[in-house]
Amino acid sequence: MPAVPLSDRVLMGPGPSNPYPEVAAGFARPLLGHLDPEFIALLDETGDRLRQVFRTTNPLTFPLSGTGSAGMEAAFVNVVRPGDVVVVGVNGVFGERMCDVAGRCGAEVVRVDAEWGQVLDPQALLDAHPAPRLIAAVHAETSTGVRNDVACLGAGAAGLGGDTLVLIDCVTSLGGIPVEIDAWQVDLAYSGTQKCLGVPPGLAPFTAGPRALDRLVEKPQSWYLDLNMLARYVTGDGARAYHHTAPIAMIFALHAGLGALLDEGLEASFTRHRDCGEALQAGLVELGFELLAPPGHRLPQLTTAWVPTDRLPPGVDEAGVRRLLLERYGIEIGGGLGAHAGLVWRIGCMGHSARPANVSLLLGALAEILR
Amino acid sequence: MPAVPLSDRVLMGPGPSNPYPEVAAGFARPLLGHLDPEFIALLDETGDRLRQVFRTTNPLTFPLSGTGSAGMEAAFVNVVRPGDVVVVGVNGVFGERMCDVAGRCGAEVVRVDAEWGQVLDPQALLDAHPAPRLIAAVHAETSTGVRNDVACLGAGAAGLGGDTLVLIDCVTSLGGIPVEIDAWQVDLAYSGTQKCLGVPPGLAPFTAGPRALDRLVEKPQSWYLDLNMLARYVTGDGARAYHHTAPIAMIFALHAGLGALLDEGLEASFTRHRDCGEALQAGLVELGFELLAPPGHRLPQLTTAWVPTDRLPPGVDEAGVRRLLLERYGIEIGGGLGAHAGLVWRIGCMGHSARPANVSLLLGALAEILR
Repeated sequence: MPAVPLSDRVLMGPGPSNPYPEVAAGFARPLLGHLDPEFIALLDETGDRLRQVFRTTNPLTFPLSGTGSAGMEAAFVNVVRPGDVVVVGVNGVFGERMCDVAGRCGAEVVRVDAEWGQVLDPQALLDAHPAPRLIAAVHAETSTGVRNDVACLGAGAAGLGGDTLVLIDCVTSLGGIPVEIDAWQVDLAYSGTQKCLGVPPGLAPFTAGPRALDRLVEKPQSWYLDLNMLARYVTGDGARAYHHTAPIAMIFALHAGLGALLDEGLEASFTRHRDCGEALQAGLVELGFELLAPPGHRLPQLTTAWVPTDRLPPGVDEAGVRRLLLERYGIEIGGGLGAHAGLVWRIGCMGHSARPANVSLLLGALAEILR
Repeated sequence: MPAVPLSDRVLMGPGPSNPYPEVAAGFARPLLGHLDPEFIALLDETGDRLRQVFRTTNPLTFPLSGTGSAGMEAAFVNVVRPGDVVVVGVNGVFGERMCDVAGRCGAEVVRVDAEWGQVLDPQALLDAHPAPRLIAAVHAETSTGVRNDVACLGAGAAGLGGDTLVLIDCVTSLGGIPVEIDAWQVDLAYSGTQKCLGVPPGLAPFTAGPRALDRLVEKPQSWYLDLNMLARYVTGDGARAYHHTAPIAMIFALHAGLGALLDEGLEASFTRHRDCGEALQAGLVELGFELLAPPGHRLPQLTTAWVPTDRLPPGVDEAGVRRLLLERYGIEIGGGLGAHAGLVWRIGCMGHSARPANVSLLLGALAEILR
């Protein structure tokens, strides 16, 4: 068969990141069936590891069989009924996506906007409606590199009367900066494997707390993402009820990647991501870049910078620089999304990509390319 | 971290099968980004390979980012509007599942039942309603081992007036027995990777023809499975619009597995599956088993047999025999589903599991265990 070349990339875009080396051993495991007792044991252990990473005791904590966006959809379809009021914080692509997904559930969406690149005001989210069904926000906005303050939403929502759920998108935050599902009183959260967890894309780590489970839609519009049915397979002491065939090889990979992360230690991982992000951001400023996200809310794992249009090489545009980085150095960085297309670069230091050598390589390459 | 043992299994259940050895090389590829030109080339080549396997020229032929059941949901949510009449053939678990999924789309479901273990009457499907939106059937019923006659549905549906779409579930058929999407005038079809394609579970090969694309729901209830949005990423000559991050490693694996299958040749694969299935079924009959599916409609890749309850070893029940097979011989076979639980065994010879040595091993093991 014709073959695509085997190129080795330094993945410093907004995801995927380079997987931890331990992940290869996960993919190399001999395949098991989805009802094999050994696979169930490994799935349970994956759940235990995810609980450590999410910092939760939620029994329903598991890898959902789709990418992070499937996690988002699962979070909404299982608790939102037509006509429910859903407050969504929007300061980037993924907040916008939440509005789209909630709207498809028939929600009455109340948007709380902040400018792209700025921070959501959590009090504005809490004040947007007296008794919403759900307040949803993105912790780490992958489109802008902004960290939103979500820690206070749980306590604030409880103050609204106790019937409002809180949903947090942790796709780009989990494993890279502190996420505290229980301490923050978050009811629903999902992530992706391909960011700070250092595993290829394909699964959505997911957790749902007791208040969310009390309010589940009995028969959600999605069969595939129906938490009532999924719970009968992923939890429970006895026989597991078949729902769909679990993506076994990807779960092996996640299990291995989480093992690497927890062997390093969550705090050590946060420190490594912070150190790499700070070194990258300082280096970019030194090269004359302007950063997009405001100080104090810059994600270390995802840096956004305005493209220095006056310093591009002759005849090379923004996309051309990214192509040069890819072809000459094997480095992938990301372009801007939406209104930022062509204007912004998004540079990830996530998972196994978050290493000082990668920061030095990228800064050196940019110094060579730019005038 | 605590570790689950690395056991090597002969996977002869209803799926997953053992992956082709070439798949390991797919997982071992260095990861690429989902917008990397090399990944797009590999994705396009994966689409070409899927078109060969589905025997279709449909441009929108691609691996959907979920398991086979996500493929089923995608097929329904993208063409069914509330109130649409959907005719579903039901002679097993997966026909039942189609009714559930279609119902969640607001369809008026018209069931055409056949007894579990018997064959659907395709004319009954065509006669069930004068002008349905969709006629849906499972080609290879994984719960019963029955092959349904679906080849005539497309021409028959065209005779209804031309506005009825035909949807076929090819999860267990694709790669193991002939599937002819274009010749059969099928509008929508999906499969799974973990059966006769010999790749771990996690993706749903999917194809949609021009008549289906003409009738797409503009904004389906699922964002994740929205074909309008997915098409902007998976097809097209120029820039690909980001929708969600593709499950890159799984697509590497599928690309490699399809390469192995096409190098062998589809006809050769059908012959291998047929020979293994016939040898297994003859061997089981020789051992005194009664087969469930009727002659002429027995799937070679998935054999169902009544458990010989009078020949179980003392103190060992049906599940106990499967446990013995797993623990003593490393062989996985499947139990019955639904009303067949405890009464039927389901034995797969699919993908790389479809080898004569595996048939001999299983027959030998059963002869040793049974009285």
